[in-house]
Amino acid sequence: MSTATATARDSARLRERYTAVRRATERLAQPLSAEDCQLQSMPDASPVKWHLAHTTWFFETFILARESGYRPVDQQFSFLFNSYYEAVGARYPRPQRGIISRPNLDEVRRYRRGVDESIDRLLRSSGRLAEIEPLLTLGLHHEQQHQELILTDIQHALSLNPLRPEYHDHQGRPAAVCASSNTHPVSRAGHEWLDFPAGLRWIGHDGDGFAFDNEGPRHRVWLEGYSLAARLVTCGEFLDFMADGGYSRPEFWLSDGWATCQARGWAAPLYWEQDDTGGWRRFSLFGMKSVDPAEPICHLSYYEADAFARWASARLPTEAEWEAAAIEVPIAGGPEEPPLCPQPVTSTSPGLRQLDRDVWQWTASPYTAYPGFTPSAGALGEYNGKFMCNQMVLRGGSCATPRSHVRRTYRNFFPPEARWQFSGLRLVRDR
Amino acid sequence: MSTATATARDSARLRERYTAVRRATERLAQPLSAEDCQLQSMPDASPVKWHLAHTTWFFETFILARESGYRPVDQQFSFLFNSYYEAVGARYPRPQRGIISRPNLDEVRRYRRGVDESIDRLLRSSGRLAEIEPLLTLGLHHEQQHQELILTDIQHALSLNPLRPEYHDHQGRPAAVCASSNTHPVSRAGHEWLDFPAGLRWIGHDGDGFAFDNEGPRHRVWLEGYSLAARLVTCGEFLDFMADGGYSRPEFWLSDGWATCQARGWAAPLYWEQDDTGGWRRFSLFGMKSVDPAEPICHLSYYEADAFARWASARLPTEAEWEAAAIEVPIAGGPEEPPLCPQPVTSTSPGLRQLDRDVWQWTASPYTAYPGFTPSAGALGEYNGKFMCNQMVLRGGSCATPRSHVRRTYRNFFPPEARWQFSGLRLVRDR
Amino acid sequence: MSTATATARDSARLRERYTAVRRATERLAQPLSAEDCQLQSMPDASPVKWHLAHTTWFFETFILARESGYRPVDQQFSFLFNSYYEAVGARYPRPQRGIISRPNLDEVRRYRRGVDESIDRLLRSSGRLAEIEPLLTLGLHHEQQHQELILTDIQHALSLNPLRPEYHDHQGRPAAVCASSNTHPVSRAGHEWLDFPAGLRWIGHDGDGFAFDNEGPRHRVWLEGYSLAARLVTCGEFLDFMADGGYSRPEFWLSDGWATCQARGWAAPLYWEQDDTGGWRRFSLFGMKSVDPAEPICHLSYYEADAFARWASARLPTEAEWEAAAIEVPIAGGPEEPPLCPQPVTSTSPGLRQLDRDVWQWTASPYTAYPGFTPSAGALGEYNGKFMCNQMVLRGGSCATPRSHVRRTYRNFFPPEARWQFSGLRLVRDR
Amino acid sequence: MSTATATARDSARLRERYTAVRRATERLAQPLSAEDCQLQSMPDASPVKWHLAHTTWFFETFILARESGYRPVDQQFSFLFNSYYEAVGARYPRPQRGIISRPNLDEVRRYRRGVDESIDRLLRSSGRLAEIEPLLTLGLHHEQQHQELILTDIQHALSLNPLRPEYHDHQGRPAAVCASSNTHPVSRAGHEWLDFPAGLRWIGHDGDGFAFDNEGPRHRVWLEGYSLAARLVTCGEFLDFMADGGYSRPEFWLSDGWATCQARGWAAPLYWEQDDTGGWRRFSLFGMKSVDPAEPICHLSYYEADAFARWASARLPTEAEWEAAAIEVPIAGGPEEPPLCPQPVTSTSPGLRQLDRDVWQWTASPYTAYPGFTPSAGALGEYNGKFMCNQMVLRGGSCATPRSHVRRTYRNFFPPEARWQFSGLRLVRDR
Repeated sequence: MSTATATARDSARLRERYTAVRRATERLAQPLSAEDCQLQSMPDASPVKWHLAHTTWFFETFILARESGYRPVDQQFSFLFNSYYEAVGARYPRPQRGIISRPNLDEVRRYRRGVDESIDRLLRSSGRLAEIEPLLTLGLHHEQQHQELILTDIQHALSLNPLRPEYHDHQGRPAAVCASSNTHPVSRAGHEWLDFPAGLRWIGHDGDGFAFDNEGPRHRVWLEGYSLAARLVTCGEFLDFMADGGYSRPEFWLSDGWATCQARGWAAPLYWEQDDTGGWRRFSLFGMKSVDPAEPICHLSYYEADAFARWASARLPTEAEWEAAAIEVPIAGGPEEPPLCPQPVTSTSPGLRQLDRDVWQWTASPYTAYPGFTPSAGALGEYNGKFMCNQMVLRGGSCATPRSHVRRTYRNFFPPEARWQFSGLRLVRDR
Repeated sequence: MSTATATARDSARLRERYTAVRRATERLAQPLSAEDCQLQSMPDASPVKWHLAHTTWFFETFILARESGYRPVDQQFSFLFNSYYEAVGARYPRPQRGIISRPNLDEVRRYRRGVDESIDRLLRSSGRLAEIEPLLTLGLHHEQQHQELILTDIQHALSLNPLRPEYHDHQGRPAAVCASSNTHPVSRAGHEWLDFPAGLRWIGHDGDGFAFDNEGPRHRVWLEGYSLAARLVTCGEFLDFMADGGYSRPEFWLSDGWATCQARGWAAPLYWEQDDTGGWRRFSLFGMKSVDPAEPICHLSYYEADAFARWASARLPTEAEWEAAAIEVPIAGGPEEPPLCPQPVTSTSPGLRQLDRDVWQWTASPYTAYPGFTPSAGALGEYNGKFMCNQMVLRGGSCATPRSHVRRTYRNFFPPEARWQFSGLRLVRDR
Repeated sequence: MSTATATARDSARLRERYTAVRRATERLAQPLSAEDCQLQSMPDASPVKWHLAHTTWFFETFILARESGYRPVDQQFSFLFNSYYEAVGARYPRPQRGIISRPNLDEVRRYRRGVDESIDRLLRSSGRLAEIEPLLTLGLHHEQQHQELILTDIQHALSLNPLRPEYHDHQGRPAAVCASSNTHPVSRAGHEWLDFPAGLRWIGHDGDGFAFDNEGPRHRVWLEGYSLAARLVTCGEFLDFMADGGYSRPEFWLSDGWATCQARGWAAPLYWEQDDTGGWRRFSLFGMKSVDPAEPICHLSYYEADAFARWASARLPTEAEWEAAAIEVPIAGGPEEPPLCPQPVTSTSPGLRQLDRDVWQWTASPYTAYPGFTPSAGALGEYNGKFMCNQMVLRGGSCATPRSHVRRTYRNFFPPEARWQFSGLRLVRDR
Repeated sequence: MSTATATARDSARLRERYTAVRRATERLAQPLSAEDCQLQSMPDASPVKWHLAHTTWFFETFILARESGYRPVDQQFSFLFNSYYEAVGARYPRPQRGIISRPNLDEVRRYRRGVDESIDRLLRSSGRLAEIEPLLTLGLHHEQQHQELILTDIQHALSLNPLRPEYHDHQGRPAAVCASSNTHPVSRAGHEWLDFPAGLRWIGHDGDGFAFDNEGPRHRVWLEGYSLAARLVTCGEFLDFMADGGYSRPEFWLSDGWATCQARGWAAPLYWEQDDTGGWRRFSLFGMKSVDPAEPICHLSYYEADAFARWASARLPTEAEWEAAAIEVPIAGGPEEPPLCPQPVTSTSPGLRQLDRDVWQWTASPYTAYPGFTPSAGALGEYNGKFMCNQMVLRGGSCATPRSHVRRTYRNFFPPEARWQFSGLRLVRDR
């Protein structure tokens, strides 16, 4: 095969992949109005319009702007849509992203198309595909991260509207997809525990295929023996915790967790509301729905997950324990497009279940550098390393994660008080 | 003339007036995108969409809902678009108005049309026009107040966008309307002072034509002799104050004013920016423009107006002094639609000038009840009376006030730290 | 009589007066420990030690420092103990006064003695008594103001101690002085109303004897006819307001008042606590005591006083109405030293009662300049004028006011949300 | 030896140890006035008086209250002086400890004496010494922790007094103890690096002698090879960092660190002030002194330590790296009473220096549970475990740590923004 042919094939593959990810993002915004896309409900969240623009800015800044002769769509966008890359220049204050009405949604969509066309041209013509591919791939994984954030951020924004509108009301996907399923019997018999022996284990990405810099270097960790629950904690189990005074008994909580719980008046997971009869309903991307006891518990902070584990006479796994156990289990299959709702466990197959398609699982591990970690050079080095403080690692994947974005070595991270992600937990015990 | 004919004429007159005011509101929103109309830049301001809906809610709640058989456009709107009428039921927290993306702008426009059609039907058919007219008139004056707020609120929201966009960029009105006019010589010769003798004066609305409840009862006030400046204070004079250390010398300031000035880092009026050469520019509804020394100073807080007056060895007039002097001067003519920019004084006619078409004028009077004041009964009694604390009275009218909304007895009021209104000052001295 | 004799007599009189006021201040601090005198419970309040030092600083700065050859006790004290006189130099941030442990209480007492001795020497020897007397008199009235603040501030600080300690536990004054007196029948028959006709009245200090600058100039005010309650509102009446939902019905409240009430969770006057049986007790300078229905209501904000008046179908008097009515009533006699507790009304004498020895009375008047008001020159001009915004006038005097400090033209002022003063109300109605 | 004799010897030993620690605490408070001991300068700090009382409360609550017949000195003290033991009952809000003027300092001293006498009686008479000894020992180590906090808290409080008073001014210890020593040449030649090979290492307390629960269980950790600096980072090196823009270049900082640095305006370590000539001085327990370039840098937050390390092309050690290296080095000798100032390095002996007598050393390790960690039962289980979130581990010891309180396995911990401790750093590099 000639080099030219190989290059053409590489180019076609990259263009196809690029288009697939970019279109997936736009489909997420499709059910939303211009007003919806403008909302910023809290400093931690961003407007959907900003996500649409920022992911585009990433390709423009780190790929196109390095090409000679490239003329940016709009000089001001690099200021407006930078997120946290200090090395790239001043950035617009995060908590005020919601005040940027101009460019409007149509203009941002034009911005996307303009960059897409430039990328397409570049991929068709460049003689430096090998150089561009890693950056392009990073940009696509970056965009997939923002796909999940689009969903979590719009859910939070819509939840503040007293009308409790559905994300999907414009699109027509049946809410039944996420309907309560009381037919699934909740196993009150408790958890099945899988044993793992003490020993020296290798952890971290082995360099085969894409990974973020924080997933390496691969390194050894000594683990004591542990028993990991085969499935996630369910809403039913969490209701038991609540019924046992979980939110009012400080003995279950970390000190910071208890203070946060008291200060914010937490008495249930985020988005839960009690109706007049005492029953619980929760706000989801499909609007209000009954809490299904068989469903994995979701929208917990680390503090709540940790308190639940202590109440249950267990604990949260470290990320090494999680990875060492999960690494042998194949990633769940299914459509690329995420289901947007955690699903009750139905499988009775042996081994670890519900690893990556329902909720991210809080671990007991603060987010720190692996031994020997070196951030990427330049602005891209700001991607992960500088957040290594005051955050906890979550592992697995969720009902809002694109299938192709899941990796067993993936280290998601959020502050311990964050609740608006699709976050739940799995228990572990010392052997 | 038969009663039927008279009624038909009254009905036609009311419908015409109603339509004129309602259309004027919609013209104000016309240059704005759905995203623009969604913005809430601070708790004091509201989204344009909310103004469009709330003014409509007023007619629905206080007129239509009292008609038997009326079915509201949407039950939830009475919750979403109530502003501060506690007697009408729970209300949505003011600082979170910007998070209401649904109903969207199109739906709010449909809401307006629905209510307009109902009002039109009612005015054509009702046998109780005499009963409806006062409420309708109140609703229209209420809507005109919100017309001015639409302009001040969107100016504030757009000012936070680093692109400094113009309000009028979609509409095509020439920015030249508001352009600097250095050809107007600033009179450095100072102010012309008009003398008014001591004596007992009548103040307040005499009941002829519409007035808000807070403009009465008409009552006597003893005034000592005073000399009122014939014109407004200009930007040029305010630049002199700044050059003389106005923002850094506490001796000119009220204690609360100085603390506010320090805490917020005020060093110029709101919207002013200094360019590299030291020249001053200001953000306006027409974008950034040079400060025109001949133009009336605008976007001052009460604290700044008061400090300027003390620096100028003068003071601010009381509202009684202002009204007693202004009551004899006819209200300025001109088109109903406001010019959106204060204009430099050009007239050399004798007497008081610039009373009502440039900037509201801070007075030294806290906003309190006139002797014998009784609020209207029911929810409408909340319109004015309950704000009679911690606010200062402004008099006159501004470049954002519809012509037909101006009255010599009009009592505008804002907290002393508010700057985003079209607010300036006129000096007075003891005789 | 020779001039020398007259001067000697003046000097003796001044020294006697000076000593009396200064000793009275020290007696107030006598029951307090060094730790008590260090407390600052909120930014609005100051440590007793600071009051002891600041009143001394006043004499040092405005009298002694102007004498040639005077050497200050400590250069740093002029920085530490300046309160708000910007013209005298930088000042230590008010909210951090509680962190100044050094100089300690003993050193501040030495500071007082040092200044007292210098003042004594000056008064014995100076040939400029006529020049010094006005400043000295001002300083003594200033110190009397701080005597009342010592009491209100320490009451607030002690109230935060869960042990609810008494101010007087070290001194032995019987708590019975302030004991409940249920033998006083509360007149449920309501108020006696005294009528005053409409007319032009003179208001303000006439220049005979000492007055603060804000009490003048004397000027004319037109008053409509009004009926003023002969006595204060009682705790019993306020309990009726509470029982009628006073704290939960927005229709009685100003908008800012309602917001404050909600935000701070007010459900009773400051210092009130409900015991297990539903009875009310209140914290006082004598510790916890039962609420006496016959006692004047105390520790109200303006917002609560205003809401009560609206509930009672009455209103608060303006300060002009209050003064015009009270000016003819002699000031209550009795010992110079205040009783520290409001007393139930017992008198059945005709005319206005309880004007000046129980609680300050909130008026409907914002604190503003009288017509023609000019502040004193120099730093002393900062005494009153610069606070003329966002405050309401209280009239009369309280159970913490030294007898010789009471004047009918006295204008006390506090922000409308302030509750820690001895503040209550008297009703008025339009005739 | 008879059992009775052995018991008597144990009793004597315990009483001697108890008395030594308790007296050391009181000596720390000796130079302070009642007012000094009342100060609380920030929520993180506590009044010295509170430390004196709380350490006493610990013995009363966990030892004496369990003895039958014990009558507490004052029932209310268990409420006032509980710190964070939720299981023992409600506690007084930490940020308001400074408002508790009663009991006063003398009364707290009486409280100490009362408890000391009861403990003494108990130790002389109890047949359960073996049961009491662990609690007593824990209480003494707890008290030693508070000895260090007494010093750090009073330094912070005094630093806010514009007079910059010395802690030691009443005592007469010469400030020269802590004087600048420019005779010590700062080694600009850089650090000496000590190599440690990769391997599996045992970490944690081995159970021989006292340790806090968080120091165990002893467990294996895999460490990659590393090179640890033989000495601490100096003020001179930190001045180089500052001169190179350390506080203004985001590339050195963690994201949260940079945000904190910006928000609080950090431009130098805590307590540093620049004089008119550009020279740096720092506030210490001995008042203001010149910054000595040879002295270990102190009063850094984790963020600053981490930024310095990144600037220096190094990093902070993990706590396992620190412990594995330090475990073989004997603890520094010297007097039990700490010197209160970090000392310049003078030793030229080989091996690790300045491990435990100058400044605590920030590590890269978040404070988490060791594998298999189980908190103590009951309230004492709250001692350490519940703080295992949002804090970073510091290792070593400081110039404010009593000699007998130092352990190589000791895990000190503070939030990453804390600066008021005696905290500095030591560098490490990957081999």
